[in-house]
Amino acid sequence: MRAVEGLESKVRSYSRSFPAVFSRARGSIILTENGRQMIDFFSGAGALNYGHNNHRIKAAITEYLASDAMIHGLDMATPARIEFLETFNSVILEGRGLQYRYQFTGPTGANAIEAALKLARKVTGRQNIISFTQGYHGLSLGAIAATGNRFYRKVSGVSLPGATFMPYDGYLGPGVDTADYVRKLLMDDGSGVDSPAAILVETVQGEGGINVASKQWLQSIQAIAKEFGAVFIVDDIQMGCGRTSEFFSFEFAALSPDVVVLSKSLSGYGLPLSMLLIKEELDAWEPGEHTGTFRGNNLALVSATAAINMYWRCTRFSEEIRRMGELLLRRLEAIASEHGNDFAVRGRGMALGFDCQMTEVAEATTRRAFEKGLIVERCGPDDQVVKFLPALTIDFETLNRGLEIFEESLIEAVTEVRGKGC
Amino acid sequence: MRAVEGLESKVRSYSRSFPAVFSRARGSIILTENGRQMIDFFSGAGALNYGHNNHRIKAAITEYLASDAMIHGLDMATPARIEFLETFNSVILEGRGLQYRYQFTGPTGANAIEAALKLARKVTGRQNIISFTQGYHGLSLGAIAATGNRFYRKVSGVSLPGATFMPYDGYLGPGVDTADYVRKLLMDDGSGVDSPAAILVETVQGEGGINVASKQWLQSIQAIAKEFGAVFIVDDIQMGCGRTSEFFSFEFAALSPDVVVLSKSLSGYGLPLSMLLIKEELDAWEPGEHTGTFRGNNLALVSATAAINMYWRCTRFSEEIRRMGELLLRRLEAIASEHGNDFAVRGRGMALGFDCQMTEVAEATTRRAFEKGLIVERCGPDDQVVKFLPALTIDFETLNRGLEIFEESLIEAVTEVRGKGC
Amino acid sequence: MRAVEGLESKVRSYSRSFPAVFSRARGSIILTENGRQMIDFFSGAGALNYGHNNHRIKAAITEYLASDAMIHGLDMATPARIEFLETFNSVILEGRGLQYRYQFTGPTGANAIEAALKLARKVTGRQNIISFTQGYHGLSLGAIAATGNRFYRKVSGVSLPGATFMPYDGYLGPGVDTADYVRKLLMDDGSGVDSPAAILVETVQGEGGINVASKQWLQSIQAIAKEFGAVFIVDDIQMGCGRTSEFFSFEFAALSPDVVVLSKSLSGYGLPLSMLLIKEELDAWEPGEHTGTFRGNNLALVSATAAINMYWRCTRFSEEIRRMGELLLRRLEAIASEHGNDFAVRGRGMALGFDCQMTEVAEATTRRAFEKGLIVERCGPDDQVVKFLPALTIDFETLNRGLEIFEESLIEAVTEVRGKGC
Amino acid sequence: MRAVEGLESKVRSYSRSFPAVFSRARGSIILTENGRQMIDFFSGAGALNYGHNNHRIKAAITEYLASDAMIHGLDMATPARIEFLETFNSVILEGRGLQYRYQFTGPTGANAIEAALKLARKVTGRQNIISFTQGYHGLSLGAIAATGNRFYRKVSGVSLPGATFMPYDGYLGPGVDTADYVRKLLMDDGSGVDSPAAILVETVQGEGGINVASKQWLQSIQAIAKEFGAVFIVDDIQMGCGRTSEFFSFEFAALSPDVVVLSKSLSGYGLPLSMLLIKEELDAWEPGEHTGTFRGNNLALVSATAAINMYWRCTRFSEEIRRMGELLLRRLEAIASEHGNDFAVRGRGMALGFDCQMTEVAEATTRRAFEKGLIVERCGPDDQVVKFLPALTIDFETLNRGLEIFEESLIEAVTEVRGKGC
Repeated sequence: MRAVEGLESKVRSYSRSFPAVFSRARGSIILTENGRQMIDFFSGAGALNYGHNNHRIKAAITEYLASDAMIHGLDMATPARIEFLETFNSVILEGRGLQYRYQFTGPTGANAIEAALKLARKVTGRQNIISFTQGYHGLSLGAIAATGNRFYRKVSGVSLPGATFMPYDGYLGPGVDTADYVRKLLMDDGSGVDSPAAILVETVQGEGGINVASKQWLQSIQAIAKEFGAVFIVDDIQMGCGRTSEFFSFEFAALSPDVVVLSKSLSGYGLPLSMLLIKEELDAWEPGEHTGTFRGNNLALVSATAAINMYWRCTRFSEEIRRMGELLLRRLEAIASEHGNDFAVRGRGMALGFDCQMTEVAEATTRRAFEKGLIVERCGPDDQVVKFLPALTIDFETLNRGLEIFEESLIEAVTEVRGKGC
Repeated sequence: MRAVEGLESKVRSYSRSFPAVFSRARGSIILTENGRQMIDFFSGAGALNYGHNNHRIKAAITEYLASDAMIHGLDMATPARIEFLETFNSVILEGRGLQYRYQFTGPTGANAIEAALKLARKVTGRQNIISFTQGYHGLSLGAIAATGNRFYRKVSGVSLPGATFMPYDGYLGPGVDTADYVRKLLMDDGSGVDSPAAILVETVQGEGGINVASKQWLQSIQAIAKEFGAVFIVDDIQMGCGRTSEFFSFEFAALSPDVVVLSKSLSGYGLPLSMLLIKEELDAWEPGEHTGTFRGNNLALVSATAAINMYWRCTRFSEEIRRMGELLLRRLEAIASEHGNDFAVRGRGMALGFDCQMTEVAEATTRRAFEKGLIVERCGPDDQVVKFLPALTIDFETLNRGLEIFEESLIEAVTEVRGKGC
Repeated sequence: MRAVEGLESKVRSYSRSFPAVFSRARGSIILTENGRQMIDFFSGAGALNYGHNNHRIKAAITEYLASDAMIHGLDMATPARIEFLETFNSVILEGRGLQYRYQFTGPTGANAIEAALKLARKVTGRQNIISFTQGYHGLSLGAIAATGNRFYRKVSGVSLPGATFMPYDGYLGPGVDTADYVRKLLMDDGSGVDSPAAILVETVQGEGGINVASKQWLQSIQAIAKEFGAVFIVDDIQMGCGRTSEFFSFEFAALSPDVVVLSKSLSGYGLPLSMLLIKEELDAWEPGEHTGTFRGNNLALVSATAAINMYWRCTRFSEEIRRMGELLLRRLEAIASEHGNDFAVRGRGMALGFDCQMTEVAEATTRRAFEKGLIVERCGPDDQVVKFLPALTIDFETLNRGLEIFEESLIEAVTEVRGKGC
Repeated sequence: MRAVEGLESKVRSYSRSFPAVFSRARGSIILTENGRQMIDFFSGAGALNYGHNNHRIKAAITEYLASDAMIHGLDMATPARIEFLETFNSVILEGRGLQYRYQFTGPTGANAIEAALKLARKVTGRQNIISFTQGYHGLSLGAIAATGNRFYRKVSGVSLPGATFMPYDGYLGPGVDTADYVRKLLMDDGSGVDSPAAILVETVQGEGGINVASKQWLQSIQAIAKEFGAVFIVDDIQMGCGRTSEFFSFEFAALSPDVVVLSKSLSGYGLPLSMLLIKEELDAWEPGEHTGTFRGNNLALVSATAAINMYWRCTRFSEEIRRMGELLLRRLEAIASEHGNDFAVRGRGMALGFDCQMTEVAEATTRRAFEKGLIVERCGPDDQVVKFLPALTIDFETLNRGLEIFEESLIEAVTEVRGKGC
């Protein structure tokens, strides 16, 4: 640990929240260097939907490595690439009646967002991107312009032009349909909102505090995009790949996004991979207009193919997630109603947020949970929401044990914060 | 191949220049699906300095995978991370009398550049980045503002503020020291050049056409940065990790950059990894100000550690690269002088450019080389330069075979282009 | 007229709406070249609040010209300048308990806005300007960024960063206090709205369609500016100088803006003059940081002094405007209710808007009015509002005659548009 | 004076350099309040080429005022406007074989520049403006982006995108043709210089230090603009209207700019007026796309017409300016060579700069000159150049008297600065 503290830049963050050396992991359990077992409700910020070191996926990449197959080849054709394309196409897209072209971008979510915005601007000849309050889309300059968080925005040190923020679903209270406001501003030639190249939306805002958009609102936003000639982009980086129970987070609302952005759990093994799905008629790229050395990381394509084959060939996995998610939700709601009248629980599938309302309570809860053996993160503009992103493959017992730790920690945290007179 | 053509976005590029399915690879040889052996002078755009599937590195990651060690953990502490930090520090930095703090950014070069510029702006409170004609620093919005190429700039679809381009070494002909011009503009309060947050430079411009900066010019630029309070950033993404014979490309000029940007061959196995080295006094980050899911990719840290241990514990590897680079240079010069009086050869270490002056000749040469079994790329603003980036581990015979193919292809290309009356 | 059509750029506009050569004018009457008398409800877009060629003001400038006093001297001290400063200070500011420093900017409203925004950014170290839907603040690049109209924004041809548009009072319907929304976005660290350097507001939006902000809303906005450390700027270019009955348009709401922007009718004779009033504690300028050749136009200062002395030494003029404005309002409301159930009348003082709802009706009305001898302009995002800005000095009979023409024209316009089946 | 000091913002500047109350003026003589006679070599920063209160021009505006003709009417047609258009067209343009359309912009130079850049961006669909080191084009946000001076740039508080600065003629020393460098950067697709919408140039840089571009260089720049599809704009705000002897400053080089920007002395009497001359094929404006309340200020059009009729109907005035300018130049060169070997004299026509090399010397010189009865300003990036802009109508004796004062002041200044040990 001294090496990390002594040598790494002050920018490091998770090694502060979770101050331990994590040596091995399997499924939802991580072992620390000194032998503690930790339950993981964090899943690498949503990049480990299938758990740590999922053995069936591991088998595929181990075999691939052993065979001296191409590891790195930019966007040159390889069997790994071809197999991924064919598998994703038949298993994921065709079954859902979807048709998209694939673009592998640099293997970060931000890079995929940059590519999506570039394409939308190219296609429309416009500059403005409509994104939403609490939206999080990454930290490179193009992506951060569409990210709401002032903490991140400020450090960019330059103007962040090119995005207009609109109120997300529910932002103005339960009675107000914010989609109406979006439409009003776009229809009004004097609103100061320039014609949009794209509307960029998460169906559930992860970093923003597990804010859930309704089916109706999402459909309105999609209709508005179409009406005003904007490319409709769903950022499914955190909420895709089964997190909300179906593979894409927008399936429940029967959306048909123009562009879908995937990353995080796409590779299924925590290996860097990012991808855009683009409707054919919007695929206006010239060859090489957006490039990147590590695009289409072959090892990650191999694990991604394995994950798809393993989990998405039938609907059982989705049903399992839904069931587990409901259990989790009900349990969190029970905890919320038992231990305070201000707590709120939100979410969809296995992306759940426990809103402590007070940053201090959330901080003390996750700190104490860590001490007791549970890794769980916070989110929301003031980090006041405890974010539950367990592996989708978690077993009932481990989930339960984790929830017990959470409940104990919450009780202690409330006492601790009260004690301080907050 | 049909899957790639039918399903991928039009943005794909290398699968057009090199239209084959590449199935296996080892060292400097790639096998295509239908059994052809190709010599690789391209090295995954510089990400494979130690060759494909280097078996000693492979052993390390295979073992790591097998042990169920942490694969993905954002910036949480892991043994793999700690071992990398300690190894890099002792083997690379201490031996060179350097001291830096480490920041693992999102695993793309562009993301590391974004972080470097953010930090420079934060530290100085200024916005302007000085970069150079033909400079290439990536394609996310912050990075592309500092990238010279109009093809890439145009497609961003928005203004690209925040960078001022200066003439690179040699840009105004052999008699002119362009560093003097840079100093003049910065001293002159009426020049229109805003005070710089950073000067961002490659010691050899790879994408820009293998343009080589002299020791003296680089020292002047570093001195100017200091004089005007700008952070001096060396982008060593393509030229670092031994490409110019020493580990860092700036060692020959005894520079002491404020920030060094590494990526591409850093992991040693083509796995995505990017890193900033930051002088301690400039490490002004607050925790979490620049984040990214796949930062500090553990598998890549393991291979990086293996590569450093294998190649950089003594100076033999450097000497080998220098020797091989000289062979390559002399051979290319011979070819240049034999087959045309316009051809020019440039480069340092094993980063060499053969400037055909005419795009058509360069295009026909690399096309024909591919047909004959050699993978070699082009660079420069008009893609008129054939770029030689063989693995640093290439053996003499393979190098020679590749050069023979190149020479034959060049001769044919010249005939072809003359035949067209160009 | 042929000279105008043949020689002027296509950008000319009013000579299209009002296609006549206007040779002489007095008070509210303009004479065309061929002898027609036109009633003027347009007042040079609000720059002629005291009517055309007001003879008492004219006497002052004629005398000044005759004396060979300084006409042009940038910001050098002249008796004209000193007299203006002393007069404005004692008659306008002291009587109202206000204290400001004076900055004469380039003699356009846009230039004054540019200076105000520059100052706000300098004082706060922030960049973001909050302006409002339908706001109009001028067409130079800094000002246009804060102007809502897409027609003007689009032609700038570049990004317009640095402003965030908020819904003006009433924008979301009568039940919604949009100031609450502004506060919510500013309090929320994840809203995507960067901390504001300034809030820039018109108390009545002239170009935007004669939208009237309530006292309470304006007070909330002022309180929000204070709360979030933003400079509170009232753009009183069109609504100041008596247009809403008091000298400043914000007096009715007892506001105390940090910066007030004046232009248009400030000189009282249609001569170019613009001015900022700046609270002393915000006067952070270094000498010469914002300059301009024609700032503090002496001839205009002379006429401005004359106007102030003539009209603002007692409250009678204000009362007169209020009385006349009420007459005008009641008459327009009567017309509205008589001739259609969709028409709406809005305004304060002698700034009134007759919202025809349909652009065609408004267009036909003003076209026909012109033919009948009335000059009256349109405003609003779709030019659907007829804008009444008669001279504040208009007599009852002329006002009445103008209104009769308007009513006739409206009736005909409605018939015309219906005939077209709209 | 107390009113000015006590009430005006700290931004005031000339009332600091020239601390007196200027009450009356005629030709090249200004009278202060307490009876001193000052010789004026400053001419209102170039806005008074025909001297103060030129009586023949005064007669025209006095008569106009008396007749109750239209003073203010935006861009409505008036006899004053028509007469100006016809006079300027026949006297100025036709005689020179020029053909342009007229656009009256807001009556500041900056506003005219904003309009010119907007038009260039509209016509080309590009954003980048090429301007030059030391160029000065005004201080609104669009104009300041093309202005080189860091003092002004910094206070804007935001990024200033959209302009690329190139070295002006002579910037890199006498041996280097900087136009070659401009061409090289534009031809090079990797230079980082985006395709230009416009090249914006002054033929003599006034604020920048009286830097004189050669005929050949200007012709090269014009040719480059044509070659790369950029609109060629000459900013003749300070150097036009006879300052360099011919009406337009570019006549000597036989240029044919696409757009010419005029202001300052255009009205001939110090009244605010600005104008673009636009080649017909570039007049791509839609009606009203660039507006402004005080555009086409009628009183200024009347004085402008009078000035043109008086001075420009034959070539005598030009010859006079040339003769007087040569006298002035020779006299300044004599002074330079007599009193120091570092002094340099530059200029064309009656725009001359005496470069003291040291800011202190220039400052002490103009301060002492003011005390002795001469108003003369400084320019250049360090305010080290004394700028001679006497009225073009100055008589020999007054010129001589002014020069005597200057010489005395210079001698004293040199002694003063030496005494301080600088």
